[in-house]
Amino acid sequence: MAVEAIKEQLKRKVEVRVTEGKKIPHLAVIIVGNDGASETYVGNKVKTSAEIGFGSTLIRLESDIAEVRLLHEISLLNSNDEIDGILVQLPLPKHISEPRVIETINPAKDVDGFHPVNAGKLVQGLDSFVPATPYGIMLMLEHFGIETSGKHAVVIGRSNIVGRPMSILLSSPRAYGNCTVTICHSKTKDLASFTRQADIVVAALGQPGFLKADMVQKGAVVIDVGITRVPDATKKRGFSIRGDVDFESVAPLCDWISPVPGGVGLMTIGALMTNTLKACELRD
Amino acid sequence: MAVEAIKEQLKRKVEVRVTEGKKIPHLAVIIVGNDGASETYVGNKVKTSAEIGFGSTLIRLESDIAEVRLLHEISLLNSNDEIDGILVQLPLPKHISEPRVIETINPAKDVDGFHPVNAGKLVQGLDSFVPATPYGIMLMLEHFGIETSGKHAVVIGRSNIVGRPMSILLSSPRAYGNCTVTICHSKTKDLASFTRQADIVVAALGQPGFLKADMVQKGAVVIDVGITRVPDATKKRGFSIRGDVDFESVAPLCDWISPVPGGVGLMTIGALMTNTLKACELRD
Repeated sequence: MAVEAIKEQLKRKVEVRVTEGKKIPHLAVIIVGNDGASETYVGNKVKTSAEIGFGSTLIRLESDIAEVRLLHEISLLNSNDEIDGILVQLPLPKHISEPRVIETINPAKDVDGFHPVNAGKLVQGLDSFVPATPYGIMLMLEHFGIETSGKHAVVIGRSNIVGRPMSILLSSPRAYGNCTVTICHSKTKDLASFTRQADIVVAALGQPGFLKADMVQKGAVVIDVGITRVPDATKKRGFSIRGDVDFESVAPLCDWISPVPGGVGLMTIGALMTNTLKACELRD
Repeated sequence: MAVEAIKEQLKRKVEVRVTEGKKIPHLAVIIVGNDGASETYVGNKVKTSAEIGFGSTLIRLESDIAEVRLLHEISLLNSNDEIDGILVQLPLPKHISEPRVIETINPAKDVDGFHPVNAGKLVQGLDSFVPATPYGIMLMLEHFGIETSGKHAVVIGRSNIVGRPMSILLSSPRAYGNCTVTICHSKTKDLASFTRQADIVVAALGQPGFLKADMVQKGAVVIDVGITRVPDATKKRGFSIRGDVDFESVAPLCDWISPVPGGVGLMTIGALMTNTLKACELRD
């Protein structure tokens, strides 16, 4: 599986760094409050760091923390030479400005790639930290050798975190880019008329089972970014994770499809760790 | 004409500022070497500044200037309180790194909107300086009340200066945005199959007369960003300006079309001046 290959590679790179007497990559994660999904994501990031030999620091803050105190925590991490990557788990409580928090992170440690400087460099084709989900999808395309140049990709969703950077990456002059890209969203009329023309569909709208068989052409590549929790009495935890694609009906049509859970979600963590190693190497 | 309305409005705002004892907006333009087209653009910027009552400073540097000296000139402008907007006319001689020059400009004075911070804020829907050409097109859509929400826009070209920001603006949740946008470029296969489906076509590829009648559907809105100089013995200056659209054949099909010369080119200067006023106001 793609993510195992990436983790294996990162692990080896850490081992080489240790042999060479270089610093071990270290990721700092801040979580504010205790949202269930956020806890899971943060837990996975800390666990994966350990698996591949990265150091990690988890900072837990109360949900009613003052914004200025959160910003201060970030400044401490910015100036802490031990820390290579800083990640503030989103969403944040409503009384805190997410843009202000993100802009406080040193862009050179912004392994989530959400700082405007990194977003801008991505648009301009300059070297930057690419947000983990779209970067994970690019690594997946690369791992499975999925040809993209000259293909028509339809991206559903225009979020800053997934849809927008995905549409930029796929349409840029780069490896696993060079697609003609159509970006669709809630204001799109007759969305199926676009997806039916697509060689590649990226579904990132957060509506479980949205993409159905009659919206996809035969031979398409379908990438499912959805990870919605839906109530499920048959599960001990009370919910299942569902993607934006109606997998059962769509999969038989596809040349290639990413499953949920286990597809893009896993790659996202691989991408974050790759960014953290990169941040560390840039500071060598 | 749209640009006259904008200039009139800017002029009045300057007059009000003068009455209120506030600072007059001041644009600094740096030109390196003496490329013919660049001279024309820079000349128009200085002339327009005077027309609407802005101050302006033109700094001419030799084409063999050392990069470090150019960067030093920019730093002086960054720290000069009289200067609100700084613009370095592109392209620059090959021995100078354009990204390095652009990143040296204080983002708060970057009225061209080319600094990664401004490009990133644009992508993220945050307040920023929008590059003059796409911003001028947005002002044009607004001036003529051209409905965009839910329309399918096809942008031809993926440059950092026009195609890319244009595709972002038109697809963003904002006034004169909310289009479904397809971004096409040199790697696009069967480009006409995309433009023929478009409600709005933005041609920004720099190939004179590229967009022909058989590539456009009846009732389309066509925006021509091309401004190529083509040899023309009938003109005293020896060339004419041609757009990317074959105007004679395409215009009869269109609901609305922007001419070249005189369309987007003029709006671009209006947009730049609007950005300069904004930079000045932000410093009040």
